[in-house]
Formats: sequence, structure tokens, C-alpha cells
Amino acid sequence: MSFRAALVFQILRCMHRSTPLRQLQVFRLPMSHPGDLSALAALLDTGRVRADEVVAVIGKTEGNGGVNDFTRGYFTQSLMHLLGARMGRDPADLLLELPCVLSGGTEGVLSPHYSVFVRSAASADAPACPALAMGRAFSPPTPAADIGRWAQVHAVADAVRSAMADAGIDNPADVCFVQVKGPCVTAARAAAARAAGQQVVSDDPNRSMALSRAAGAFGVALALGEMADDPALEAGLLTRFDLWCARAGVSTGVEVQANEIVLLGHSAHWRGPLRMACEPMADALDLPAVTRVLARLGLRADPQLDNADRHRVAAALVKCEPDRRGQVRGTRVTMLDDTDINAQRHIRAAVGGLVAGVLGDGRIFVSGGAEHQGPEGGGLVAVIAEAA
Amino acid sequence: MSFRAALVFQILRCMHRSTPLRQLQVFRLPMSHPGDLSALAALLDTGRVRADEVVAVIGKTEGNGGVNDFTRGYFTQSLMHLLGARMGRDPADLLLELPCVLSGGTEGVLSPHYSVFVRSAASADAPACPALAMGRAFSPPTPAADIGRWAQVHAVADAVRSAMADAGIDNPADVCFVQVKGPCVTAARAAAARAAGQQVVSDDPNRSMALSRAAGAFGVALALGEMADDPALEAGLLTRFDLWCARAGVSTGVEVQANEIVLLGHSAHWRGPLRMACEPMADALDLPAVTRVLARLGLRADPQLDNADRHRVAAALVKCEPDRRGQVRGTRVTMLDDTDINAQRHIRAAVGGLVAGVLGDGRIFVSGGAEHQGPEGGGLVAVIAEAA
Amino acid sequence: MSFRAALVFQILRCMHRSTPLRQLQVFRLPMSHPGDLSALAALLDTGRVRADEVVAVIGKTEGNGGVNDFTRGYFTQSLMHLLGARMGRDPADLLLELPCVLSGGTEGVLSPHYSVFVRSAASADAPACPALAMGRAFSPPTPAADIGRWAQVHAVADAVRSAMADAGIDNPADVCFVQVKGPCVTAARAAAARAAGQQVVSDDPNRSMALSRAAGAFGVALALGEMADDPALEAGLLTRFDLWCARAGVSTGVEVQANEIVLLGHSAHWRGPLRMACEPMADALDLPAVTRVLARLGLRADPQLDNADRHRVAAALVKCEPDRRGQVRGTRVTMLDDTDINAQRHIRAAVGGLVAGVLGDGRIFVSGGAEHQGPEGGGLVAVIAEAA
Amino acid sequence: MSFRAALVFQILRCMHRSTPLRQLQVFRLPMSHPGDLSALAALLDTGRVRADEVVAVIGKTEGNGGVNDFTRGYFTQSLMHLLGARMGRDPADLLLELPCVLSGGTEGVLSPHYSVFVRSAASADAPACPALAMGRAFSPPTPAADIGRWAQVHAVADAVRSAMADAGIDNPADVCFVQVKGPCVTAARAAAARAAGQQVVSDDPNRSMALSRAAGAFGVALALGEMADDPALEAGLLTRFDLWCARAGVSTGVEVQANEIVLLGHSAHWRGPLRMACEPMADALDLPAVTRVLARLGLRADPQLDNADRHRVAAALVKCEPDRRGQVRGTRVTMLDDTDINAQRHIRAAVGGLVAGVLGDGRIFVSGGAEHQGPEGGGLVAVIAEAA
Repeated sequence: MSFRAALVFQILRCMHRSTPLRQLQVFRLPMSHPGDLSALAALLDTGRVRADEVVAVIGKTEGNGGVNDFTRGYFTQSLMHLLGARMGRDPADLLLELPCVLSGGTEGVLSPHYSVFVRSAASADAPACPALAMGRAFSPPTPAADIGRWAQVHAVADAVRSAMADAGIDNPADVCFVQVKGPCVTAARAAAARAAGQQVVSDDPNRSMALSRAAGAFGVALALGEMADDPALEAGLLTRFDLWCARAGVSTGVEVQANEIVLLGHSAHWRGPLRMACEPMADALDLPAVTRVLARLGLRADPQLDNADRHRVAAALVKCEPDRRGQVRGTRVTMLDDTDINAQRHIRAAVGGLVAGVLGDGRIFVSGGAEHQGPEGGGLVAVIAEAA
Repeated sequence: MSFRAALVFQILRCMHRSTPLRQLQVFRLPMSHPGDLSALAALLDTGRVRADEVVAVIGKTEGNGGVNDFTRGYFTQSLMHLLGARMGRDPADLLLELPCVLSGGTEGVLSPHYSVFVRSAASADAPACPALAMGRAFSPPTPAADIGRWAQVHAVADAVRSAMADAGIDNPADVCFVQVKGPCVTAARAAAARAAGQQVVSDDPNRSMALSRAAGAFGVALALGEMADDPALEAGLLTRFDLWCARAGVSTGVEVQANEIVLLGHSAHWRGPLRMACEPMADALDLPAVTRVLARLGLRADPQLDNADRHRVAAALVKCEPDRRGQVRGTRVTMLDDTDINAQRHIRAAVGGLVAGVLGDGRIFVSGGAEHQGPEGGGLVAVIAEAA
Repeated sequence: MSFRAALVFQILRCMHRSTPLRQLQVFRLPMSHPGDLSALAALLDTGRVRADEVVAVIGKTEGNGGVNDFTRGYFTQSLMHLLGARMGRDPADLLLELPCVLSGGTEGVLSPHYSVFVRSAASADAPACPALAMGRAFSPPTPAADIGRWAQVHAVADAVRSAMADAGIDNPADVCFVQVKGPCVTAARAAAARAAGQQVVSDDPNRSMALSRAAGAFGVALALGEMADDPALEAGLLTRFDLWCARAGVSTGVEVQANEIVLLGHSAHWRGPLRMACEPMADALDLPAVTRVLARLGLRADPQLDNADRHRVAAALVKCEPDRRGQVRGTRVTMLDDTDINAQRHIRAAVGGLVAGVLGDGRIFVSGGAEHQGPEGGGLVAVIAEAA
Repeated sequence: MSFRAALVFQILRCMHRSTPLRQLQVFRLPMSHPGDLSALAALLDTGRVRADEVVAVIGKTEGNGGVNDFTRGYFTQSLMHLLGARMGRDPADLLLELPCVLSGGTEGVLSPHYSVFVRSAASADAPACPALAMGRAFSPPTPAADIGRWAQVHAVADAVRSAMADAGIDNPADVCFVQVKGPCVTAARAAAARAAGQQVVSDDPNRSMALSRAAGAFGVALALGEMADDPALEAGLLTRFDLWCARAGVSTGVEVQANEIVLLGHSAHWRGPLRMACEPMADALDLPAVTRVLARLGLRADPQLDNADRHRVAAALVKCEPDRRGQVRGTRVTMLDDTDINAQRHIRAAVGGLVAGVLGDGRIFVSGGAEHQGPEGGGLVAVIAEAA
């Protein structure tokens, strides 16, 4: 289908509108510690947000981002208790339907914050289309033995397709960004699996986290039609870095058991001022990618967003990783050889500093471990903003 | 003196030339570990650099930048042995005359490297003036009990004045940037001082490093006529953050006993293509300060230096610090409350990532601990580049 | 009163029994992560423990033990939700009456665990006396500006006296060990206090934690009659290390606002097999102190407890600290100069390894920061065990 | 051969004495930083030690013990410069013949120190035999692609046999302890190997260090006749933990290129008061192994060595490791899941604390990474002491 034909098709879909219109709002809120949900509580108190319209949360908590980062679990527990109390529901049930995608580690200038995605009905007279659309889904719980294997790739792909359906997006081309939160193998889970006669893909928890991220990226690529459903590609996890998806952001953590999906795109069935753009980053110094993604949203960084444009930004998401070749643009870097500070913490701090410098704001979801999520040694940058 | 009068005066000085003309060259070299001086050895081997014309080294080594960072001592020992062997001199003597200013910590995208300053005679027919000038000096060894006190401020100021004389710069206004490397109080030195009946300013080694940096900044300000010689200002060290010098960069380390000075400025008695500019950074997100300092040197970052301009940069120096108010532009950051990663490592990674993003190069001397060196919570950025 | 007279007095009190008899049980439980209360839930499910008889919890969680250790808050929230649900009470109310004293940091061989103290009525025909007794109390919330000052010393002392009354212990000599959990000053609290025109004792969060621990130790000493109520002694906090209390263990954390007290001793009004002993440790190598405290309980480590004796141990509590003189028995140690690993993590790992080696068990509450809690550079070791 | 026959054989060898008699001395010296060799310099100055009789150095420096620990290289350079200057030799040549086995990481109560092994002629009338004997050897430089493979096992075994010959020990049963220092794969070396078309066994530097240690242990076992020369066993490296050698201690570091061997045993051709004993440690709590090894040397720890016995100890060497099953004696430990502190640093601190507690001294060479060096999850402890 040519670009022109696609445009006509979009317009026709806009006019069609058999589906009820929806609107997505994003509230970017501060927290004073990982158990502090007071900012969301205040929005619920005033009625600006309805608890049952909260469909996803993406946030950064101030842990180390590694296997023993419990700030994610603490925040999640606090969130589920808050929403459960407001909705009169059991927090344990909410946990299985509300994606809460957290990345630990607010290194450098990054600020602990969380973005609350609120989905509500839009009035039929709301102007303009297509607008930012959002869908979500959970895979079934992933057995420890499946993590980092083709079975997980499949599980993620299935969940991404469910999330597209949930968002009312038919065409993979309309998907802008898919956030996945996947499980990992801790020492305890590995022992349990072995006791059950199963083999985990790696005993090293940090490696299992990397493999889980890789499988998540492959899963998104599979669902979006960018990759063949070929189990032989399992061997490409963490080895074939020429295989990457520019629309997948994956993080992992001990606190989740399934693959959780938050899918964002544009749809004629949605209304509101929000739009999103996403660009691959070639390496950890790819500042031009940041200005490019802003330009696509009509935001001008020269060299930094001014105050007005800064307030139009609703959320910023970045994936990055320490280049496994030990160099950035030909000069040696030391992240991978550092026994004191995990390499992911290094890279989050650095790329976080760069993106925050362009945006003039440290409230960025910067997640390390960009294996197969953007070019090797690079990653991607995505921004949600109000249309000008 | 008006700007016009100053210009005439400069031109007259250029014509005068009673002093022998000198030229400064800066070689920015890679190292594969802190004891690797092979790049300098190669320059010495080919005769491109003469050992006795090396007047200072400023570099970043891959330690933690803290009290127990021995990469600085290791590099220094290696450097002195190399130059000593080439010059037939005792390395221990060289140590007392050759400033070797190292900052540990190549967090994130920062690359271990060292800039070798080479001072040689310039031919009388070399074009243009004034050019980049350089002078150096050492204070006498600083007793542990003097560190972080007005006595150290005085010692630094005296050494800065000596370095101005060494550079042939009379007017403090012609000084662009003064790099100081100062000593600090380790647990061992504190114990020794106490045994000798003396009082050290702080038992906490990290605090003693901060106080030493503060005293260094005050010392530069004093020598450059920006601060009064008032011992009562000692109480302002680490408290009066409205007092700062935009031309002082100070780092500290266990491996030095005295205050070492490398002073850079412009002088009509010097030749060559190198120029320098320096700008204060208002905070850790002050990306515009970086583009501004480049613009003053005729380099255009839009949003990043292109390849040609990148190769004109000879050295970049940055001071930065975690804002002690725990916020950056109104959003909370977590550096100061992190028990796992020292706050200086956080901020070096973040500001290093930002500046490297603009320059497209991670070979930047980013030094934490910018107390009184630029605005509170900010710092400064300085670049040496070939004139267009 | 001579030892003989004291004994007679004790026996008379045993016979008196006007107060209802009580019994203390201690359950030492494992956790698989800081939000895992499943072991306690199982005890509640089977009825072995009644939720309303849980009077205190002392535990070690697997955080870093520093200002940004949120495992303590996470565990506390999980505990209060569990007990609140079982008792039909608001978790927020429980928080104000149930001491939950957590120390973060399970370095080395230390194992994450928690000891649940359960207080119930004892039948009048229970044998022997005096047995282990326990009382608890909370001070009012401590303002940030009071932390590390004589006001906090007073607040702790008052709370200790309340806890003695709660335990039914009149004579301070019968108190064996007082555990205090105190608040500290984070960057955020410091900013808030300053905004309110108040002065905090230190901006450095780690220093504020140390001062809070020091004030806690002084408070216990004051209440137990070991120290005079002299505000001039405030200057002795973290300076007069000759002032120490061998019965105080204090830890601090961002997650508490008040001083929480768990007091343990022996009383004729209590029944059951549990006894406690506590010994000061002279330094971090004082292994003989561990065997001594075991010997006082009839447990023989030769060189390690055998299986039978190991199972009689109900809880072990240790305070320790990096010697601020930078030496242990005349040889230099490097903890205090380490920028990568906090000194408290170093010492917990080392002393934890030593005590675990004697007990043959890593489930020890080892808490760093033993300022004024035992001799300088040492600390104390306390064990609760069943009488032989 | 029965024990009685062995004894007779030893006595006959003692009487034989065709080989010139030698004596080993061990000087355990403090350092104030990794470049501080002043204690050895003083021994050389006074003539107590002759530079050309220094045959090996084993020490602990205060780095992190990981890939980016440059304290080992710094110390080595300082040592070689010192001895080179005293002997009028090139330090670069000494590096290839003098084993300098350093382990980084003085966690907890461990003290930075180095043991200098001095080998000299013994007078024929020196009493008693057999005494402590020592031999040394270097393998050829190990290519990065060989590290962690059977080729490295062979290289180590060959070097161990050379060291036995150097010590004058014919019978492997007389070997007490073999210290190996092996190379590892850094990011840079891995890149170089790949550029040369070679495959390294792992890109992860920490894993390559583990594999190099494993190969070292297998190499010692091979040379001592405890293991078959079966290349299929290469697959057992880091997997078959039932294969272990109780007389091998291996550490690795970026600063060495070859496998360096220091072999210790007993021989009738040697004189002097020094003896050695070595015991496997079953796990990280195996305190009885420490008292047992002391007992074999006639030293009594009850529970700690007294002052007199403490001064008879000349050196203590310990290997230990975080149990990869995530438990110690059935209770969960968190070392392996800690993203902030490397697991080796955890275990060194803990086991160092335990052994130091028994010896009453923190000057212990505690080296992490005990793969195949003692039982899984345990390690070994070796002590050199003067015979009573």
C-alpha cells in the first residue's frame, strides 16, 4: 500500500467510527520514595483521575535496577494497595491485570517518577484524528525454564497481539512503541527449577535478565511482522545484534512473573492532543536522535527545549546499553570492566544526562539493557507530547 | 581600561616581544590502563615530543575518583618513570616540578585519556597573537592540618601567582582557566596529624577532599583578584556557595602532597593555533553553556559538532557537582542519598554524557566536586581548540 | 544491695506474683525477599501465633543499610498489611504501636530473616523464674531538627522507661538489652526543615544516621542510670567514645519518624525457657566475646556450636562498627577510605562472618553503626536462647 | 608406601644431602597504599634481606579484586622498580621471573600487606628436617583464546612441575600448597582476539576470571597426579564442582599475561623453623577447619590464638567463594543476587572476618573465586608458622 493510499485509508477509518471513541491521558508524577503514591492519591481524591480508568503505570524508582532491586516491588505493592482500596478490589487481583512497568535506577540527574496512563471515553465531538492509542496485555506466568528461550518470544508476541486488539489497532505500522516488562531468573528460582528437573538458560541473574530482555524484543518484532517465527533464531538472542526492533523497550525484574505489555500507537478511534514519536539511537552519543524525535512532534530543541515546549512533553522513554565492544565512537570506555558499578547503571547515568540536557528535564524513563532494542550499542528514544 | 584601550595595549604588547616567543601544544592520548603510557612513549620515540618540553599532564584515569583511587598514583608513577628515563633524571625529582593533574572516574561514556601539554620555542615569524599560554607552579607541601583552611587558600593563591609569572601573563583578566590539584586527608594522615598534636579539619576523607577543593577555588579567586584576602572567609568554605570562581577547576587526591597549578590563558608572547574558552554551567542540565563555549571558539554544535569541528578540539574540561539541595530544576534527584554509588560518580556520568553528546566525543576531563567552581549545583565547561 | 540480698529479693518477687504471668516466644523466620511475609502468614494460618500477640519484629533485610535502603519500608508495609488484615485493623495505626526494627544489609553469609516476638499469658503452673521479659514503646515523632541532639536523647530515655514499665521491669539492672530504631535526616527532610527555618545537625545523611544512633545510645544509658542528664553531654555525641552503653543497640532508617523501643530483660513475672545474655565486643576480632556470651547461656562453642546447641538459639543480635582510627589491633584496614563500599557494609560482613562462624548460622541481626554501643571500634553481641 | 616407610625414606633423604641446603624466610610487611614498598626497602637497606634472594611475593592490595583493579599492577610496578634498582636490573626483566601474586580486595578487617619469600643458603649445621621448601615457575604467556581451556590447564601443570623441580621436591605428596596467578580476558583483549579471528571463552570479564581460576586449579591437580590428562574434562571447568584440589589457590588479574606459580611444600633439603599446613573448608562457616590447620602446626586457638602463638604465624592464605546454590547451611544468602557489591567482595569480607577472628590478626591473604579449589561453596585455609 503506497503512502497516499494509506492516508486515504486512515481518513476513511477516521470517518467510520463504529468503535466507541477513547482518549488517553498521561500524568507524570513525582515520588519521594518508592512507597510514595501520594501524588496519585491526590489526583484520585480530587476526581481528576478515576481509579478504574488507570490502565498502566510506567515509572522509574530509585533502586539499583538489578536483580536485588526491591524498589520496583515496593512501588508495585503500594500502587496496588492504593488502587485496590479505591476500587474495593483485592490488590492481588489488580496485579494480574494492571501493567506496572518499572525500571530501577535513577542515576545522575534522573528523577524518580511515574507516568499514569488513564483511558477514558472521548466525546464524539472531540476534534482531530488519529490520536495516541494504548492497549495492554499480560502473558501467562512464564516458567523459569522458559526465560530467554523461544517459548518466551512466543509468549511476548501473543501478548503484543492482544494489546494491539485492546488498543483497537489493526495495522502493525500504527504501533509506535511497545513496552514490555518481563521476568528473570534469580538464584532462588534457578534452584527451584533445577529441583524440578528443569534447566534454566543461565545461573547468572544478570545474564538471565539480559536474555529475558532479548526475548522480549524478539517477541515484539515477531508480533509486528518484523521477524520470522523461526525457533532457530533463539540462538540469535544476545548474539545476532544485527537483529533489532526500533519499537520495543523491555525491562525485567524479580517482582514480575509474566510478560506485561503496554502498547502505544496512533488510531483514528482515539481522541485528544497526545502524539508519540520514536527514533533509534545509533550509539550512546546520538544526541541528534533526540532532537529528531522532538522535531517529529513539532518541538524545537535549540539546543534545549524552552519552557513552553518542555511543558508539552508528557513522557520520555529511552533504552540504552553499554556497547559490548568496549568503545564508543572509537574511544575506549570502561563500563563493562567495572566491578564496582554495574554497566547498566553507568549507561543510564550517561544517556540520561544527555537526554535530560536536551529536554531540560530529568523525569525520563531511561532503561538500560537495550539488547536488540535499537542498534547495537545504541537504543532508542521515544517521546509523548501534546500536539502543537 | 576600556575594551578598546585594552585591545590597543594588547597589540602593542604583541609588537613588543622582548620575551622569547613560546608555543603550547596539547596532545590528547589514549591509555589502555592507568599504567599505560605507550602513546606518549611513541611520541617521544618519533621525536614529535621532547621529554624536557612536557610541562604538564591533565588526565582522567579509570578509578573511582575517591580517597582510595590509586589509578592516579599508578599513572603518575608510570609517567615520571617514563620521562625520567628519557631525560636521565630521577622520577622523584620530576614529581616535584611537573604537574600531573588526574581525576579518577571515567563513568558512563567518558574515556580514559590524558592531555600532554608541551611548551616549546616559537619561531618569530609564526602568525597571529595572542595565543594560548600556559604556566605552572607547585605550592610547598601542605600539612594535613592546613587542608581546608585559609592557610591552604593562601598557598594556592601564591602558587597561582607563580604560574601566571611562569606563563608570562601579567593581567589576571587574561587568565582563562586554572587547574589545581590539591592534597586531602586520609585516615592515616589524620591519625598522624593527631599524633603530632594537630587538628585536621575533618576526619571524613570525602569531606576533607571537598574542603581541599573549596580552598583551591578560593585560592584561585584570591590570586585573580576576585576575592578579598580575609581569613574570616574561611568559614565560607563549603557554606557560602554564592562565592564562586568561574575560572577555577580543582581536584584532589591522596597521591599529591602539595597544591599543583596548571594555568591557561592568552598572551601576546605566545604563538600557535590554540585558543581557549570557559563558561560557567548553571546546573547539571546546562547544555546551552556547552554550545556557548564552543561558539566562542568558532565551533558550531547543531546539535552536535560535525567531524571537522570535532577534530579541532584539543581538550575539554568540565567541573560539576551533585546539587546539595537534592534537586535539579525542581525535580528530585537521588545522588546524595545513595549509599552504593558516590554522588560524584553519579554526576560525572550524567554531565559527562551531556557534554560528550554535544562534542560527539567522550575524551573529556570531567571532574566532580565543583564546590565554589561555578554556580552552586552547576560548575563550568572549558574547551581548548584550534582557531578556525 | 549485695548479690545475696538481690537474689533473696528476686525470689520473693517470684513468689509474689500479683501481676499476671506472661510468656515471650521468639520465632526466627526466613524471607525470600523484603516483601515476603509468607512464613509468618503460615504461623498465623495454623494458629501457632495470634496476630494480636505479636508485639515486635526485629529483622534483617537485604538492602544496603543506608539512607536509600527501602527494603526496610517495604518489609514494614508488608508486615503491617498482613497483621492489619488478620486483625481487621488499619495498617497505618499498627505502624504506630508495633515496633518493627529492621537493619538493612545481609552482607556475606548473613541471611535475610526476621524474629517475631510474641507475648502471651503464661499459665500459673509454668515452671521456673525469672524468664525473658519484653516491653515496647514509641517516642512521639522526632522533628528533623531534633535528630542527633539532646532532645532526641531525652525522647529515647522517656521511651525506654515506658518500655520498662510495659515489660514489668522495675530495676534497670534487670534490663539485658534495649533495641532502638531511630529516624534520620534525608536530603528531603533537611530541605523541609530549612524551609521551616530550622537547622538540622548535619546535611550529610550518613552523618545524620550516625548522630541519631549516638543519641539513641545516650538515651538508653540515661534511662538505665548509666549517664547523667546533662545537656552538655550533647557535645559528646560522636566525639566522647569513652561514653558507651553495653546494653543499647540502635539502628536508624528513613522509614521511621519516631524512636521505637524493644526492651528485653529478665523478670519474675514472666515464664518460659528463654534467657538472654549480652557482652561488649572490644573490637571487630573479639571472637572470645561471642563464646563468652554463649557460655553464660550454657551453650558451648568448641570451636563452633554443635547441632543441638545451635537449635537452642532463638536470636542473635550484634552491633559493630568500622574503627574510626583506621586500624584493627594495630594493622591498617581500609573500610573508612573506601569510596565504593560503605564502611558499615564492610564491617557487617566481617563481624557477621565471625559470629556466624561461631554459631554455625548466618541468621544474625548484625547492625553497623555501633557508636557508643560498646567500646570504640567494637560493639556488642547478644543472644537469646532456651535454657539448658 | 606406609607412613612408617615414608618416614624412613625422609630420614634417609635428610642424611643424603647431595643438594645444597636452602632456607626459606617469610616477611609479612604492611603497606600504606599499593605503591608503598617502604617496608621492604627498609629490610633491603639494613641488609636483612638481599634483593637477589627475593623469590616471590604474595600480597593483598586494597583494590576491588575485579577486572578493573589496578592496585595489583601498581604494586607490581613499584616492587619491580625497587628490586630492579637494588640489583641494577631492568624491572621489565624481573617481571618475567619473579612471581608477584596479588589478590585485590581488603574487605572488612583484612589488612593490606605482602609476604616476601626469601630463599637463601642454609648452613649445614642447621638443625632439623624436613623444613618448608619453595619453588617457582612461569608458564609462557597465555593467549586470550587459551584462557579457560585445556591449553591453559596444560600450561599450568607444566609450570607446576617446573616449580617442583625448582623447590627440589620430587614427590607430589610433599607439596603442601600451590599458588597460581593467572591471566584473564578483558574487553580489550577479547576485542583483539576477535580481530585476530580467535574465539575467547567468554566476553564477560568476570566469567573469564572464573574460568582462568578453574583452569589453574585443574592444572595443579593434573601436575600433582590428582586428575587425569583428559581434554574432555575441559567441559568440567565451572560445572563439575565435585572435581577439586585441596592444595591449589588461584587468583587472576589483568596485570599478568602468563601463569605464575609459587609452590610450597616440605623437603629434607631445606632448613629453618617454618612449616605449613593446609585444610579444605567445607563451607563459608567452617571455623573448625581453621582451628584444625592451626592444631597441625602446634598452635592452639581457644577460641583465639594467644599473643605468643600469634607471633609464630608467618602467613595465612585462604580461598573462599560465594556458594553458587545461594545458601549457606540451608539459609539463603544474597551475595549472588547483589548488583551493588560483587559476590567475591562479600565472601572475602565474611570469611576474612571469621579467619581473622580465630587468628586475632587481619593480615590474611583471602582470595575469592575458589572454583575447584576445595569443596563447592567452601575453599581452603593454609598457614605457615614457626615450629613450636
